[in-house]
Amino acid sequence: MTVVGAHDGPASTTWDDRTGAHTRRLMDWAASNRYVDLPQAAVRSSRRLLLDYVGVAVGGADHEAAPIALEVARALGGEPQATILVHGDRTSVANAALVNGISSHVLDYDDTHIPTILHPTGPIASAGLAIAEWRGLSGAELLRAHVVALEVSTRVSLALYPQHYDAGWHMSGTTGTIGAGIAAALLCGADGPQLVHALGIAATQAAGHREQFGTMSKSLHVGKAAANGVLAGLLATRGYTAAPDPIEGRRGMFTVMSGRGDADALSAGLGSDWEIDRVGIKPYACGVVAHPPIDAARRLRTEHGLDPAEIEEVELRVHPLVLELTGKPEPRTGLEGKFSVAFCAAVALLEGAAGPREFTDETVRRPDVVALRDRIRPRAVAEIHHSQAEATARLRDGREVSVRIDAATGTPENPIGDHELRRKFLDLVEPVLGAERGRELIGHAERIDAMASLGPLTAAAVRHESSPEHEGGEP
Amino acid sequence: MTVVGAHDGPASTTWDDRTGAHTRRLMDWAASNRYVDLPQAAVRSSRRLLLDYVGVAVGGADHEAAPIALEVARALGGEPQATILVHGDRTSVANAALVNGISSHVLDYDDTHIPTILHPTGPIASAGLAIAEWRGLSGAELLRAHVVALEVSTRVSLALYPQHYDAGWHMSGTTGTIGAGIAAALLCGADGPQLVHALGIAATQAAGHREQFGTMSKSLHVGKAAANGVLAGLLATRGYTAAPDPIEGRRGMFTVMSGRGDADALSAGLGSDWEIDRVGIKPYACGVVAHPPIDAARRLRTEHGLDPAEIEEVELRVHPLVLELTGKPEPRTGLEGKFSVAFCAAVALLEGAAGPREFTDETVRRPDVVALRDRIRPRAVAEIHHSQAEATARLRDGREVSVRIDAATGTPENPIGDHELRRKFLDLVEPVLGAERGRELIGHAERIDAMASLGPLTAAAVRHESSPEHEGGEP
Repeated sequence: MTVVGAHDGPASTTWDDRTGAHTRRLMDWAASNRYVDLPQAAVRSSRRLLLDYVGVAVGGADHEAAPIALEVARALGGEPQATILVHGDRTSVANAALVNGISSHVLDYDDTHIPTILHPTGPIASAGLAIAEWRGLSGAELLRAHVVALEVSTRVSLALYPQHYDAGWHMSGTTGTIGAGIAAALLCGADGPQLVHALGIAATQAAGHREQFGTMSKSLHVGKAAANGVLAGLLATRGYTAAPDPIEGRRGMFTVMSGRGDADALSAGLGSDWEIDRVGIKPYACGVVAHPPIDAARRLRTEHGLDPAEIEEVELRVHPLVLELTGKPEPRTGLEGKFSVAFCAAVALLEGAAGPREFTDETVRRPDVVALRDRIRPRAVAEIHHSQAEATARLRDGREVSVRIDAATGTPENPIGDHELRRKFLDLVEPVLGAERGRELIGHAERIDAMASLGPLTAAAVRHESSPEHEGGEP
Repeated sequence: MTVVGAHDGPASTTWDDRTGAHTRRLMDWAASNRYVDLPQAAVRSSRRLLLDYVGVAVGGADHEAAPIALEVARALGGEPQATILVHGDRTSVANAALVNGISSHVLDYDDTHIPTILHPTGPIASAGLAIAEWRGLSGAELLRAHVVALEVSTRVSLALYPQHYDAGWHMSGTTGTIGAGIAAALLCGADGPQLVHALGIAATQAAGHREQFGTMSKSLHVGKAAANGVLAGLLATRGYTAAPDPIEGRRGMFTVMSGRGDADALSAGLGSDWEIDRVGIKPYACGVVAHPPIDAARRLRTEHGLDPAEIEEVELRVHPLVLELTGKPEPRTGLEGKFSVAFCAAVALLEGAAGPREFTDETVRRPDVVALRDRIRPRAVAEIHHSQAEATARLRDGREVSVRIDAATGTPENPIGDHELRRKFLDLVEPVLGAERGRELIGHAERIDAMASLGPLTAAAVRHESSPEHEGGEP
């Protein structure tokens, strides 16, 4: 393991008595937790989330916002420390974190901490992968930083939720910065007291308004969270100071950004209750409310072997929010398709999937898709929970077939399986990097905890000239 | 004028009807205002504020937080686009903005928009100088961007004040980012619609908690405001999008960061009432509450020619807040001296000044200073406004001499004169760069609006090997 150009910071620093009790406990735990202390379930979850991260970041790297951010990173330049995924630029850890963070969120397809709607891994892994690559750290060290930083950022999220989100903050920008800062500081070798400074430097950079949803700046929140976290880690481990009580303090993050904060949430059950167990991986490339009806449509197909030509019509019974958010009857573009539950169900019945390949302009306009879509009748039913759905297909021969989804795929009660995760990964990666690189990359990502350094993984995530994009293919 | 590596953006973009009316007016004004449209008073104010900026940034460049940020900027690296003042590194515009921004605020000696306590020029000039140097733009273009961005950021501040500040936000971090973003975007050639995107990208990065006061992270707010503004300018002029109504919108900056915003303040009196007229330049290197008693002490010395040896005692009558914030009777360090109004008045009587040279450990402990300090009796008087003070000196021969300050030096009613501004500048710059460079630099800064490019100014702000710091002198 070679350490290149990084700084180890002072050998030891001291705790400040003014740090709030819950913050102190959380930071002490974060600094002292070792890889070997992690439960096997957390290690497995982290490996899956990091695999998913690589998939969505590679899949998003050519998507609207990311190439513009890449252009800016190229204009600014930087030491060749870390890799921008897909494009292959070796640039500063700050630039790599920014662009990879944007790529990881631009498809709205990254993981979700179900209780708070934080997308935790994008900021953490974008900062962490850059620092780990730079410092020549092992996959196990990255994985440990991911698990620990994810616990910290989700716990700050829990303490702030829902007031903070309701006030208009985009959690993945705000507590995302906390996660990235903790991961970066840990990977720069911070001890506990330095971790408090990193937490403060991160907290006071936390930003991102929900007003930006629907624009490129939503993804910027995740990229900036990652880059700001990198800065927090670099500064704190060089002796840059911040307030001793940045979260619980009188004018700290709780008061300023939420009006209150449930400080208990920072440390309750630490080391026994793992928030990483409550992070879901999205099976479908659209908002989570459309997931239960997509599940229902897929089950009609797989369990009942329905031929779409046989179907007279399908009644979908869904939570009212589903129609409010995704009630568009006649979508005309791939993006509009994400806001049409009828389209989502139709394409899931026809293709058995709802990934990026399904949300294209071509698929949305395909005559067989449109014909089936118009025979899907969504109906709001107040009694149905938003992670549930029911579907009844009436067939041309008079038969009726019904299915019910109690917990949508990707929720903690019904996690996406390893096979589906691989399928999602390859669906995202192969069109960008090609099949061969896709297999190479998944091989690395699936055994990330055994990698002595991350270089082979980031190298495999770079597009070669023979990759599809360079053959004129559509990513 | 050579344009190096910068991007001119699309030739023309279109306004979005969803932009709030006041925001639209403000951005339209900002984009269309030309240098020749500026009133002479605004040009003069801007020249003075930019001169003051260079002075405080050079003076702060060796001060605790700045060298650590410099170390991080060096680790990250970047294209040689802009100069880090004093240290001379040519690095990316983002890095230069970050480090110069921190240097400009670390002494707590930079300019103040009196109605809102925003320190407007640090973020704007740190972003603007970097972009202007990179793009080879003229001093007049920088000056125009400074005036316009200052109007924008102070008007957003006015709209948010005081709720936003009372909630715990550090204005120079939050609306500072707006100022830096507007300046950067203008200097990157943004048109009106692009300026709305830059405003949105800036607003959604706005951050900085007052909890950080008293730590290095307070200065980080100004450095990050500048760097975030640079990013906003670079992204927006390359087509990166943000929400059309980032300030007045439902979940925009007003609602999220203040609970309300007085949108009228954004555009009322635009082009006739200039907020730059309400920006004060600090004459003394300490908090503004100690300024009136320092003024009173200096007037005793200058108008009445008092010999400190003649003085039996001085009664200082001040606003109660002065004693609350600066009531320390026996300061022991230069920093503690800033929190002792008795010391401030004593040193002002003895030296006629209260600059960085006065706030040193040596001066605070000097026997003649301590002896006079102990004969200063500050007294809180509720009727006295916090920009006023009265002093009565009782002399050993029985005479009494009284003075009254109605508006402290540096307030809009009593601005610091050009002579005092030069004195402040040279007091800050000469110990760092030496007398010769100091004179060269002030020559450039005083005629900044006539400079064809900023290169000669930033070059003169770099320390040579023969400068004091490298001779072992104390900066």
